[in-house]
Amino acid sequence: MNYNVRDEVKGMAKYVAGKPIAEVKRELGIDKVVKLASNENPLGCSKKVKEVIMELLGEVNMYPDATSYEFKECLSTKLNITRDMIFCGAGSDSLINVLCTVVLDKGDESLMPEITFPRYESNTLLMGATPVKIPLKNNYLDLEAMVDAITDKTKIIWFCNPNNPTGSMFTAKEFNNIIDKIPREVLIVMDEAYGEYVTSDEYPDSLELLKKYRNIIILRTFSKAYGLASLRFGYGIAREELVDYLNRVINAFDTNLFAQKSAVEALKDEEFLAQVKAFNEEERDYLTSQFEKMKLEYVPSQANFLMVNVRGDDKSIHEYLLQRGYIIRPGFLLDMPGWLRVSIGTKEENREFCKLLGEAIEERDSK
Amino acid sequence: MNYNVRDEVKGMAKYVAGKPIAEVKRELGIDKVVKLASNENPLGCSKKVKEVIMELLGEVNMYPDATSYEFKECLSTKLNITRDMIFCGAGSDSLINVLCTVVLDKGDESLMPEITFPRYESNTLLMGATPVKIPLKNNYLDLEAMVDAITDKTKIIWFCNPNNPTGSMFTAKEFNNIIDKIPREVLIVMDEAYGEYVTSDEYPDSLELLKKYRNIIILRTFSKAYGLASLRFGYGIAREELVDYLNRVINAFDTNLFAQKSAVEALKDEEFLAQVKAFNEEERDYLTSQFEKMKLEYVPSQANFLMVNVRGDDKSIHEYLLQRGYIIRPGFLLDMPGWLRVSIGTKEENREFCKLLGEAIEERDSK
Repeated sequence: MNYNVRDEVKGMAKYVAGKPIAEVKRELGIDKVVKLASNENPLGCSKKVKEVIMELLGEVNMYPDATSYEFKECLSTKLNITRDMIFCGAGSDSLINVLCTVVLDKGDESLMPEITFPRYESNTLLMGATPVKIPLKNNYLDLEAMVDAITDKTKIIWFCNPNNPTGSMFTAKEFNNIIDKIPREVLIVMDEAYGEYVTSDEYPDSLELLKKYRNIIILRTFSKAYGLASLRFGYGIAREELVDYLNRVINAFDTNLFAQKSAVEALKDEEFLAQVKAFNEEERDYLTSQFEKMKLEYVPSQANFLMVNVRGDDKSIHEYLLQRGYIIRPGFLLDMPGWLRVSIGTKEENREFCKLLGEAIEERDSK
Repeated sequence: MNYNVRDEVKGMAKYVAGKPIAEVKRELGIDKVVKLASNENPLGCSKKVKEVIMELLGEVNMYPDATSYEFKECLSTKLNITRDMIFCGAGSDSLINVLCTVVLDKGDESLMPEITFPRYESNTLLMGATPVKIPLKNNYLDLEAMVDAITDKTKIIWFCNPNNPTGSMFTAKEFNNIIDKIPREVLIVMDEAYGEYVTSDEYPDSLELLKKYRNIIILRTFSKAYGLASLRFGYGIAREELVDYLNRVINAFDTNLFAQKSAVEALKDEEFLAQVKAFNEEERDYLTSQFEKMKLEYVPSQANFLMVNVRGDDKSIHEYLLQRGYIIRPGFLLDMPGWLRVSIGTKEENREFCKLLGEAIEERDSK
């Protein structure tokens, strides 16, 4: 039987189920698996989050607040914006889907870097629109080329900053050079999923830009620096008129109660966030210093992961690490063959990873 | 400025934020608010769920399993189906959205009862398709009329059973009389969100029907009888070929880790579910006996809520109850003016509700 499935869906990549860690352990016959593949927070999450989760045990049966009122109240005070400028969803994935649903139609174009977070492309395709992909320039977003590719059909332009999976950042100055070339009708998405990790003082102040440019949408998440990936909570900031449309489409109960309350506590615990940022910078420096010792090229990163060039086939490196319980993202899955992306782990994990990486390259090259 | 928002989104109802309970309390100056408006479980959730949530406190920073592997393993064993026949999402809301995204296009029709769960209509509109709404017949789904309304454009037909907000159920026999009149190309959605509460032995066995009819999709949730509304977890069952397409569209991290693990524990705790079902039946009987004493018409319900006719204006009844801390769903919001929907609460809440309902009607009629 032919199911009446939309052509856009038929054209989407078949879903390949990744193995849960428990499965990997069983198959490899090892006890310990270290996942440095999903940019999770090696420091966990704020203690206050754990406390609030325990306090919520009596409310498991209750629906979450469809408005994320408390979170919006807390964030709007912190950022000095209105509650109605904030929209919430079950992580950036959900918010990217909503943005595409709200503005993209068949025949429209959505403009993105060739190598970036893959959800911009898949959600564009889902709406029957065309993803237009602009190659990176020396592993950085090519802002000029992106702007030059804008056509009458362009509805959204996606900037992931720092970019996933390269970790590279564009500066406020670089962005200021191009922003006025973007028509006001084109939505500018500033995906700042890794923004909390940025230590450069040249990072664009997107909230300030939003005051001048009403087509800016800022996306942020609690899955990375705040350490709440398991709970699924992301948010966006845009002008109230636009958020009004987004809220019509976001599922009323997209974010769960535990995520909402945890996000509030995480937002309040500025000390934890500062620790995370300092730790990440320290370990990022450690890893790059090791890469330099090993004479491995890497992309300067402002995020909590690093893209390193393994000087040849990355599949065998991936396999060597996996056999020893270390999961990373091999470049062949990221359209960057010869590279690998590693999340910054604990001190111990980072040191062990460097040791294993050296061994893996040596073993591969000795064959 | 004109945002490039799709016409379908512009046409959607503006989002009206409901007040959180804390706000209601403050405004009314009362300490206790009883929400009998969202069909939540008055018995809470399984103790095993609370235990597993505490065990997960060390994994808040980790991404959920994108495949809900453990849940699918557990459910497939229980129901004797394959894992690939199961799809999971953040509650029925999310799954209904996915179903519409996968099959509905501009010009298509999706067929539903006039008074039913509102997400079928909103997600149909979002895809630019036309909702075709068939009036209820004496508060029951009019199965014959629904089938007669099928056209070449019909892509989905939605059956909510028991129906929300009426609580009425259609029987296996009634469904068998019409199912062969539905073309095999039309997807038949059996939304069984309240299925666990059914005590009638005439409830359709949708899993058995799925063996014969490959166009059936069963939707279930953990928000009701299992008491996990705060966590957002629902699932569907369909043929593997169809689930393959659905999985291409479902956000990989739509369900959170706490929901996934809680659903597994909830599924295992059959004793809790049996208690919930027995308690619900007992209290449903109590409420209907009280309605009979008060000479109030009601819709016979197989769910965990009751639709009762308040013999006149329901807004004033709603207001009277609200002032005393009891929140119900007034009929005017459900296209059933003159009625109200009340969720079955604790014993104490149900008794207090009946008392207040009697007072409210008396006060209204004395004016």
